[in-house]
Amino acid sequence: MLGYFGPEGTFTHQALLTVSDAPARPFLTVAAALDAVRDREVEASMVPIENSVEGGVSASLDNLGDPERSPLRIIQEALVDVRFDLCVRPGTALDQVNKVITHPHAAAQVREWLAVHLPDAHIVERGSTAAAAKTVSDPDSGYDAAVCASIAGELYGLVSLEHDIADNDSAVTRFVLAARPGWMPARTGADKTTLVAYMRHDEPGALLAILQQFAVRGVNLCRIESRPTRTTLGSYCFSIDAEGHLEDDRIAETLMGLKRICKDVVFLGSYPRADRQRPTLRYGGKNADYRSAAEWLSGLGGNMTSNAPGSTSASKKRPSPTVSPSNS
Amino acid sequence: MLGYFGPEGTFTHQALLTVSDAPARPFLTVAAALDAVRDREVEASMVPIENSVEGGVSASLDNLGDPERSPLRIIQEALVDVRFDLCVRPGTALDQVNKVITHPHAAAQVREWLAVHLPDAHIVERGSTAAAAKTVSDPDSGYDAAVCASIAGELYGLVSLEHDIADNDSAVTRFVLAARPGWMPARTGADKTTLVAYMRHDEPGALLAILQQFAVRGVNLCRIESRPTRTTLGSYCFSIDAEGHLEDDRIAETLMGLKRICKDVVFLGSYPRADRQRPTLRYGGKNADYRSAAEWLSGLGGNMTSNAPGSTSASKKRPSPTVSPSNS
Amino acid sequence: MLGYFGPEGTFTHQALLTVSDAPARPFLTVAAALDAVRDREVEASMVPIENSVEGGVSASLDNLGDPERSPLRIIQEALVDVRFDLCVRPGTALDQVNKVITHPHAAAQVREWLAVHLPDAHIVERGSTAAAAKTVSDPDSGYDAAVCASIAGELYGLVSLEHDIADNDSAVTRFVLAARPGWMPARTGADKTTLVAYMRHDEPGALLAILQQFAVRGVNLCRIESRPTRTTLGSYCFSIDAEGHLEDDRIAETLMGLKRICKDVVFLGSYPRADRQRPTLRYGGKNADYRSAAEWLSGLGGNMTSNAPGSTSASKKRPSPTVSPSNS
Amino acid sequence: MLGYFGPEGTFTHQALLTVSDAPARPFLTVAAALDAVRDREVEASMVPIENSVEGGVSASLDNLGDPERSPLRIIQEALVDVRFDLCVRPGTALDQVNKVITHPHAAAQVREWLAVHLPDAHIVERGSTAAAAKTVSDPDSGYDAAVCASIAGELYGLVSLEHDIADNDSAVTRFVLAARPGWMPARTGADKTTLVAYMRHDEPGALLAILQQFAVRGVNLCRIESRPTRTTLGSYCFSIDAEGHLEDDRIAETLMGLKRICKDVVFLGSYPRADRQRPTLRYGGKNADYRSAAEWLSGLGGNMTSNAPGSTSASKKRPSPTVSPSNS
Repeated sequence: MLGYFGPEGTFTHQALLTVSDAPARPFLTVAAALDAVRDREVEASMVPIENSVEGGVSASLDNLGDPERSPLRIIQEALVDVRFDLCVRPGTALDQVNKVITHPHAAAQVREWLAVHLPDAHIVERGSTAAAAKTVSDPDSGYDAAVCASIAGELYGLVSLEHDIADNDSAVTRFVLAARPGWMPARTGADKTTLVAYMRHDEPGALLAILQQFAVRGVNLCRIESRPTRTTLGSYCFSIDAEGHLEDDRIAETLMGLKRICKDVVFLGSYPRADRQRPTLRYGGKNADYRSAAEWLSGLGGNMTSNAPGSTSASKKRPSPTVSPSNS
Repeated sequence: MLGYFGPEGTFTHQALLTVSDAPARPFLTVAAALDAVRDREVEASMVPIENSVEGGVSASLDNLGDPERSPLRIIQEALVDVRFDLCVRPGTALDQVNKVITHPHAAAQVREWLAVHLPDAHIVERGSTAAAAKTVSDPDSGYDAAVCASIAGELYGLVSLEHDIADNDSAVTRFVLAARPGWMPARTGADKTTLVAYMRHDEPGALLAILQQFAVRGVNLCRIESRPTRTTLGSYCFSIDAEGHLEDDRIAETLMGLKRICKDVVFLGSYPRADRQRPTLRYGGKNADYRSAAEWLSGLGGNMTSNAPGSTSASKKRPSPTVSPSNS
Repeated sequence: MLGYFGPEGTFTHQALLTVSDAPARPFLTVAAALDAVRDREVEASMVPIENSVEGGVSASLDNLGDPERSPLRIIQEALVDVRFDLCVRPGTALDQVNKVITHPHAAAQVREWLAVHLPDAHIVERGSTAAAAKTVSDPDSGYDAAVCASIAGELYGLVSLEHDIADNDSAVTRFVLAARPGWMPARTGADKTTLVAYMRHDEPGALLAILQQFAVRGVNLCRIESRPTRTTLGSYCFSIDAEGHLEDDRIAETLMGLKRICKDVVFLGSYPRADRQRPTLRYGGKNADYRSAAEWLSGLGGNMTSNAPGSTSASKKRPSPTVSPSNS
Repeated sequence: MLGYFGPEGTFTHQALLTVSDAPARPFLTVAAALDAVRDREVEASMVPIENSVEGGVSASLDNLGDPERSPLRIIQEALVDVRFDLCVRPGTALDQVNKVITHPHAAAQVREWLAVHLPDAHIVERGSTAAAAKTVSDPDSGYDAAVCASIAGELYGLVSLEHDIADNDSAVTRFVLAARPGWMPARTGADKTTLVAYMRHDEPGALLAILQQFAVRGVNLCRIESRPTRTTLGSYCFSIDAEGHLEDDRIAETLMGLKRICKDVVFLGSYPRADRQRPTLRYGGKNADYRSAAEWLSGLGGNMTSNAPGSTSASKKRPSPTVSPSNS
């Protein structure tokens, strides 16, 4: 059983359907959806992580990245085009729409459309676009139309009077499926790694030092957000998506570099990119480059081991006059 | 008249009250609150910009940073401790609370407290904590208590049965007051500058190039967020708060550096930090350092101007044999 | 009158002839050649600055960059192919060459050729290849051949038995013509700027901080050398050639940036590149880019000046409720 | 047997005596001294590497760093204070000194002293200060005094009339003892690693990319010099001394990083610093930090291996609905 930040018919639900059409369980909050994974009530939960129209992004980032909670891993991402429809009960015509209900963020994004096409309609907000659709499905609700995802309309028996009525081009919203550790998607060559880096100091250059760990290994970032840590005002952590997989040596070395310089690093998983876009690698970024550099290095030091103190071969090779500098 | 992302009694309203107790006008959406400034309906509006419990952060960042909207400027910031109270109508005791109403994010943050102290209560979500308080104020609503800001309780005649019931320490949420350009708060020495930088390319190292503009001038960042640009999937901009004021030369030079390498830079204002924390400056970061470096530079080139082609003084100084290299 | 690090017939002399065939005066040491400029005995002096076969490079770099000496400016550079000839008195055949004289560095570079072609010859070193040629010109010297520049052979009446006998491809050596300040070559678009940056601290990252001043403005380096400062062991300065001219805004801003973060910066001049190679500029590196960024910036702050404290227009624009925060 | 860049009595000879007083063999050129090591004629040779008054620095750097020559390794460094004495045959008084002989660079550094104390003396230059001393030792030479190292005076039976007559404070010159690979000095905690990095491209930022490999691992540089590569004009390599030992993980990782991004890297050895100065390490720079980061990393991926394709445990853990995305 999978879970998701509900209710049914939201964009998060729609995102979940892009990865599985098995029955799934909605949760009222992001925290509840993620804790259900931790508590083994569900195998994994879908939550919004970037630019969601119905919220949850901060909650998702903070909950997943919290080093004091039982760790979770992102195993898949999903991208959903945020498209709003004007959904009505079958038989309702546009000129019969007097009262519209929707989520406040959705209302903001269709304001101009409504002003032009339904200038006299009364607009009311509700906690989610899906809840709005459910309300409209009740003929006694007093509402004639919902602005919602088409999926929400279908779910509650409504029909779309108008498709994609947002004032601007549809925004893409990103969702992730989080599971318990113990399984990691195989490297595909077009992967993302998500992590949270906790700064050791709140000093100038600390963020730059973190980013240079990526840059020096040619790892590009897909997303970065500074987030205030709960405990101290003015102390920050960074939530980051980077191109590549834990099995890419450049990612593994970057993670170790971060671990050394940061107060803490929370690894949130490596998983295939939904857009299947492969990174443009610089010279030296492939695993083969890491391997051959390691071989070169071991050739340099290979002779050293033959020189354990007291070994015969070493004493022979060692230019004796330099052993004890006479007068330095 | 000032405006804010409402309704009355939300944390945004509370933030506004920390900067002005004049009458103010709530707006249903962040976009509406900001457009009212653009349309001269209000002088300035308070909107959430970081980690707000009731949403609006993405909407604020995207609206303020949009290069195609009429520009606004942040002139003040406000920090609010997010503290939730359990508010009831006067006379209600804890053991009489059977039905609780609140905002979903608030619900998530008091879940453990409710599980311990009101294990049998039914919890219902609403669009804002203020709306929840308003509902409870109606004895016929069927709700006994709201989880909301104390300000919301007071506003609707409720009393706080329990203070600060969040499961974790209160988070600080940040709000900004945005006005039309034309006025800028004076430099205090403890200032912030907010901007949005649009990348020219979606290439490895582009973010690093942006951050180096700050680092090379010793400017520390307070906040950074990559944000997908509306038009193209995979294209990003960066919303940034930096320490310092436009009248600090290090900020002015950084802004020009960004302007040169970025596709676009939206300047969102310089304003005093709410926490009054002054930056730790590196060598060379003060305006006096910029001034003396400029004087030094003009001394280097000062002689050049006296050397306009054909000028007598120049021809005298000029070592004639080098004028026309004979055989290079 | 020009000067050069002599004696006559050296590669430095050859370099000088590429820029002027007027009579010139040789000096025994680099310091003497440069001090003659300071003392107005000559207008400018040619000295080696990179990879010279006959020395002088350290002396040139240290003397030019010394902040305690009267400043000089490089006004021209010259590149010379270091080609060695085997020069003899007219009439001498290869099988008559028993004793060869040359400069030690020259000897090192023609060793294999001599071993093959003159296996039995006795090789003797002297202070310069020109001095070697002069010696050979005296039939009573006991020497049969000099390894020297062709110019030295001609100067002393010798003929080249063999041309370009170096074991490896000829190295290019770089020379500069240094004059008193007061004149600067005009920008050509293919220029170099030479400077010495004295570090404030001997700390990790100090060199990187210096280089980032160049990198952030897209200025490429042609040469960098750390050089121990005379006064303190372990304290370093950096001698640097960068692409561009003082009249390029990116160079001017870089110089000011260095001046702010360094203990001292000695500007040694902007001058045309001998190889006439133009830099590949990044976005934002042209003077026009600097100009338009400065215009943009002044547009941001332009309104500020209209808001001088107490000015009437300002008070009108200023949203009055925010003037005195009531309770922050 | 050890070798050195001679002749006897030079500062290089003096440097060699600080590490060994066994009999040693002088070579006329740096190349000859180093090739004698390659040819097993001597065990190791001392050559100047930084700021030598008698030259050889370029020759040493280029010869040691040449990737086409048989590799050598620096096993020890020596610092020598360059102090010049005025040496005469026993019995000569200052007012009897009419003719002085020395090396040109030495002449430059004692010019003021000579002008004041021997205003009428004739100064002649020679290939080395030691050769000058040898000349003076011959009463029939016509020379009364040599400006040379005290060691050279002693060697040829001269006495010091005046000590340390350089016009400026004595400069420290650095020498290295180079041996064949096969032996490496043990890590002392105050070590240096010398290498030459050949750039892949002659592009803006290539040097910065090289330096960031050091900076990101907290490795400080002691010396850096760009050097033109012999083959192509305008192509550069970098000769670098860094703090630390090949057995320091931060050095090993830096070397591998360089190897990946550079066209070639020539490792020239890890050896104790002559000044015994220990590096100031940043957070995360110790071997223990590298070890614990590697352990942390292997904990992240540890579960992955249990998920070899087809393994039973993996299939159990894997949340089955996500295996084949239904409609992405």
